Amino acid sequence: MISVTCVAPVNIALIKYWGKRHEDLILPINDSISMTLSTDELCAKTTVTASETFEQNRMWLNGDEVPFEEGSRLTRCLKEVHRLALANGSQKVSPSWKIHIASVNNFPTAAGLASSAAGYACLVYSLARLYDIPLSEELTTVARQGSGSACRSLYGGFVQWHRGALDNGSDSVAKQIASSKHWPNMHVLILVVNDERKKTASTKGMQQAVKTSQLIRHRADKVVPERIAQLTDAIEKRDFQTFAEITMKDSNQFHAIALDTYPPCVYMNDVSHKIASFVHSYNEIMGSLHAAYTFDAGPNACLYVLEENVPELLDAVQKVFPSDSMDSGTYLRGLSVPKVDSTPKIGDVHKTKIDILDINARNAFRYIIHTKVGEGPKELSDNNSLMINGLPLGD
Amino acid sequence: MISVTCVAPVNIALIKYWGKRHEDLILPINDSISMTLSTDELCAKTTVTASETFEQNRMWLNGDEVPFEEGSRLTRCLKEVHRLALANGSQKVSPSWKIHIASVNNFPTAAGLASSAAGYACLVYSLARLYDIPLSEELTTVARQGSGSACRSLYGGFVQWHRGALDNGSDSVAKQIASSKHWPNMHVLILVVNDERKKTASTKGMQQAVKTSQLIRHRADKVVPERIAQLTDAIEKRDFQTFAEITMKDSNQFHAIALDTYPPCVYMNDVSHKIASFVHSYNEIMGSLHAAYTFDAGPNACLYVLEENVPELLDAVQKVFPSDSMDSGTYLRGLSVPKVDSTPKIGDVHKTKIDILDINARNAFRYIIHTKVGEGPKELSDNNSLMINGLPLGD
Repeated sequence: MISVTCVAPVNIALIKYWGKRHEDLILPINDSISMTLSTDELCAKTTVTASETFEQNRMWLNGDEVPFEEGSRLTRCLKEVHRLALANGSQKVSPSWKIHIASVNNFPTAAGLASSAAGYACLVYSLARLYDIPLSEELTTVARQGSGSACRSLYGGFVQWHRGALDNGSDSVAKQIASSKHWPNMHVLILVVNDERKKTASTKGMQQAVKTSQLIRHRADKVVPERIAQLTDAIEKRDFQTFAEITMKDSNQFHAIALDTYPPCVYMNDVSHKIASFVHSYNEIMGSLHAAYTFDAGPNACLYVLEENVPELLDAVQKVFPSDSMDSGTYLRGLSVPKVDSTPKIGDVHKTKIDILDINARNAFRYIIHTKVGEGPKELSDNNSLMINGLPLGD
Repeated sequence: MISVTCVAPVNIALIKYWGKRHEDLILPINDSISMTLSTDELCAKTTVTASETFEQNRMWLNGDEVPFEEGSRLTRCLKEVHRLALANGSQKVSPSWKIHIASVNNFPTAAGLASSAAGYACLVYSLARLYDIPLSEELTTVARQGSGSACRSLYGGFVQWHRGALDNGSDSVAKQIASSKHWPNMHVLILVVNDERKKTASTKGMQQAVKTSQLIRHRADKVVPERIAQLTDAIEKRDFQTFAEITMKDSNQFHAIALDTYPPCVYMNDVSHKIASFVHSYNEIMGSLHAAYTFDAGPNACLYVLEENVPELLDAVQKVFPSDSMDSGTYLRGLSVPKVDSTPKIGDVHKTKIDILDINARNAFRYIIHTKVGEGPKELSDNNSLMINGLPLGD
C-alpha cells in the first residue's frame, strides 16, 4: 500500500475563462490569466492510496463517498495520468492497482471559490506524485480535463492558460508567467457576500453564452488577446495601475457577456455592485488605483491590493460596509492586519471622504479572508494523510 | 397673443439607443426602435404662448421656471423651429415674437420614464402647431436635438430612429414602422421598482460607454442592424414570439454594454433581475413567450404583453411579487384589468408552478401602471391650456 498526500491552491482569474470550444476536452475559446493564492489560508488537500488489494477505485469528497463512474471527469483524469505514467516509464506503482482517494477543501463552499479547480489540481498532482510523474505542461492538460481552470492551480504565482489551437487539446496548457516571489506583496481580500439566489452553474452558463451571446466571439477574438499581452507586461513590470485596471475591466466584461446570454446569467448582486462602486470611489479618493476587484460566477469580491495598502483598504471597507460581527473573531480570517493609526498615508481628508460615501450596506458580508499570492501544489509528509489503511480518517 | 396646447406620448425602446457619434447634434451610433405608449395614461403636456408684448422667452417645467439660456438644447430647438417656419413660409405667428412655455408630465419622476423624450416631443410639436409647420421627418430632427429619443415620440405606434450617415444629421430621423392600429392589443405593464441608488445619468453613461466599452462598436455595427431588420419584420407580421425574444435580448445587451463601461454603469438592481428571471420562468411555464421585459437606464421593468394575456400575467406578477398595498387603490394604475377566474387558459398546473417559483420579493414595487400602444402628439382645445395671460396657471 502506497500513499501520497498533497495540497493545491485556489487560483483567481484576472482575465476570465468563459466559453469552451470543446466540451469534453475542456478547451477554452480564449486564454486566461490567474493569480495563485497561498495554500496557508485556502487549499484543497488530497490523499491517494494505491494497493494491490483494493478491489475498485473509490473516492471520498469532504468525507462523503462519491461515485467513480466510467466516462466521468474523474475517470478521465486517472486514465490520462496512467497514460503519462506509462510514457514516463514510471514504475513506482503499477497502474493496475486500484486507488482510493480522499479530498477535502479547507474553505466553506459558501466562500464561493472555485473548489473544483483546487480539487482537480490536487487530485492530478497527487496522482502524479504517486506514479512519480514530474510536473510538466502536459500534466496541466490532465488537470484541465478535470476542471478547466484546475490547470492554472498547478503553478504558483501568475499563470496563463493558453487556449491552444489543436483539436486534441495538447497545446491547451498552463504556463507560469511569474512565480510568487516575483511580486510577493500582492495581497487579496476576499469579501464573502450574503446571498440567497440560485445561480446558473458555470458549465451551463458558458454553454449558453457561447450559443447565444452575440458579443462573446468579439471578446474572445479581439479583446482578450490584447488584454493578455497588457496584463502579462504589467505583471512582469509589477505595474499595479495597469494590473488593476485590466483586472476590473475584464471582470466587468465577463459579467457583461453573462448578461448578454439568453436567458441572461446574473452572478453579481446589489452588494457586489456596491463593492465595485466603493473600489472606484476609494481609488478616486486615494488619487491612484490602490485596489482592484474581480468577481467570478458568484457575488463574492476578490480585492487585489499591495501589502502596504491592506490596512487602509480594510479600514475603509469596514467603514463603508460595517458588520455587527466585526469583532467576533471569525469575521476577519487569514493573515493578520496591523491596525490603522489615525495618521499615516490616508489623511483626514481621505477618511472624511470615505465616511460620506453614499453606500448603505450593513452586514453585507459573512466574513472577510485575507490572503496573498502563493506557490503551487506540494507534497506533505505522511502524518498529514487523510486516510488510514486506505479509508478516510474517521470513516 | 396666440396659444397652443398639446400632449405628447412616452416611448419605450425595444432596440436601445446607447451611444452618440455627435454630442451636440445628438446623432446616435445605431438605429433604435420604440413603441409609443397611449397618452391616456402617461404624457407630457405643453402650452406655448406667443405675444408681441412678451419681453423675453420664458419656460416653466412642472410649475418651476427654468432658465432659457443661449446655447441650451431648448434654445436650439426653438431656433430650429424658427428655421422651419421660415422655410415653410409660415405666417401664423412672427418668429420675432417672444414665447412663454409651460410644460408638465402627468407621471411622477419616480416612475423613471424618460420624461425628457415626451417633454421635448411635446415642446417641438406645440411650437410646430404654433407656427403652422406640418409634422415631417425634418421636424423629428428638431426634437432629436432636444433629447435624442424625443424624435421617436412624434409618432404613434412603432417607430424607428434611423442613425443616418450625414455629418449634419439631416438624415438622422424618426419614421413610423406601423401605427397603433396595426397591433392595437399590444399592452404594457410598467413595474415601478423601489430603489435608492444613484445612477449615472444617461448622457454621461453613453459618453463613457462609447469611450471605454470594447464591445459597444461591435453591438452598433454588427448586432443592431440585424435586430432592426428582425424586429421590423416581427412588428409587421404581429409575431409576438420574435418581438419578445429580440426585445429581451436587446435590453440585456444594452445593460451588458453599460456594465462593460469603465467605471461600470449599473442600472438594473436585484429586483430588476428577479423580474427578468420571473418572465423567463413564466414564459417557460406557459409554453411560449407570453411576456417580454425591457429595462431602460433604471431599475423599472416594462413588460410587453398582448391584451388577452394581461389578466394572467398580472395575476402571476402579484403572486410572485406580493405587495402590502395591493388593494390600496393607487397600486394598480391605468387601464383596468379583468379579474382572473380560477379556470381559464392558465390551468391549475400553471398556477402551482408559479406559486413555487423561488423568487422572494415582497413589496418590491411602488406601483404598477397598465397601459398600451398609443398615438402620437395631438393638439388640445384651449380649455386645456396650462397658461392664462401668458403665465402658468396658479402662478
